[in-house]
Amino acid sequence: MKQIFHEIILRTKGPGLYDFTDQTLDFLNSNKMLNGILNINILHTSASLIIQENADPDVLYDLNNFFKKLVPMDNKLYKHTTEGKDDMPAHIKSALTNSHLTLSIKDGKTILGTWQGLYLFEHRLENQTRRVSHHLMGE
Amino acid sequence: MKQIFHEIILRTKGPGLYDFTDQTLDFLNSNKMLNGILNINILHTSASLIIQENADPDVLYDLNNFFKKLVPMDNKLYKHTTEGKDDMPAHIKSALTNSHLTLSIKDGKTILGTWQGLYLFEHRLENQTRRVSHHLMGE
Amino acid sequence: MKQIFHEIILRTKGPGLYDFTDQTLDFLNSNKMLNGILNINILHTSASLIIQENADPDVLYDLNNFFKKLVPMDNKLYKHTTEGKDDMPAHIKSALTNSHLTLSIKDGKTILGTWQGLYLFEHRLENQTRRVSHHLMGE
Repeated sequence: MKQIFHEIILRTKGPGLYDFTDQTLDFLNSNKMLNGILNINILHTSASLIIQENADPDVLYDLNNFFKKLVPMDNKLYKHTTEGKDDMPAHIKSALTNSHLTLSIKDGKTILGTWQGLYLFEHRLENQTRRVSHHLMGE
Repeated sequence: MKQIFHEIILRTKGPGLYDFTDQTLDFLNSNKMLNGILNINILHTSASLIIQENADPDVLYDLNNFFKKLVPMDNKLYKHTTEGKDDMPAHIKSALTNSHLTLSIKDGKTILGTWQGLYLFEHRLENQTRRVSHHLMGE
Repeated sequence: MKQIFHEIILRTKGPGLYDFTDQTLDFLNSNKMLNGILNINILHTSASLIIQENADPDVLYDLNNFFKKLVPMDNKLYKHTTEGKDDMPAHIKSALTNSHLTLSIKDGKTILGTWQGLYLFEHRLENQTRRVSHHLMGE
């Protein structure tokens, strides 16, 4: 059994979805794993991970907009306000989506649908540097 | 280490929860894996996967109904409307639930609670053919 | 390849987030796994698992409060009411969060961010005994 660890750094500029599929595929292609599991974890609780459609950018806009309305940036709604009006909504949006994605690798390729892309979902207003752990385990 | 890949095809007829626990158990029983991980991924972004109560069908009705009200099929709310009024809500509902489930296998059996079943959560109105990848890794 | 199974029992007293990070780390430390996957599954459908900030308790309060308002305990909204006004909301809140967490282990340590803790999210009103399966697989 082989195990390989790698960290991808993503720089975000405000709320929205950031496609990191290519970085993940680059990591996969540089390691000759035939079959196995790729476990991806975000090391933060105010940004999250999702698999979404990679065809129409409007889908990404609508997704971000839905979460913006569902979890308002309104200090009156929360007790935890010391880190800014966007911090508590960011934690809630993270809880509603995912902190990790687990993909299967078969014949050297990720098992993903034609229209599936990997996204970091940023929920904070300020620029951020986000760490996304990649862990490949297989043969 | 052994790895086995399998794809389950589910035909859906409108929004709601479709139990595929039996198909997953059939796949497990036909392969003599003692201990390991079963990684299940849906290859679409307008349907999702959840583990839910398998006792009372009203639970499945209420779940679907809650998501229907939370994410309205109303074109005025979205920019991405070219694929029908149900498409963008389908992407959002998928983001709110799961694109994959990772189960543990011990002594040849999935570690699941007594009342836990595996469901595909269909979010589109038209009939669909859904691909659900199964990847067994262990010994 | 080594595989180790363990079950953590958590006793909950009403809705809210219960930190079980220490119990998980105790399990890890008592087993000398260098690199691998830790798959954590909750064996219930009316409580769930999330990774969240472990610094400010107000975050935990606000999270619970958000879900309380999003999924009201109001029997008029649901068909499944025989198990109490809190049961159907508990299933919905579970569907909106996670039934499992998959962590990566590197050099004997979980890959988690500085502020990330592991929480059981209880959604029922009465005291409960919750089973959380831990499955370690690696070398």
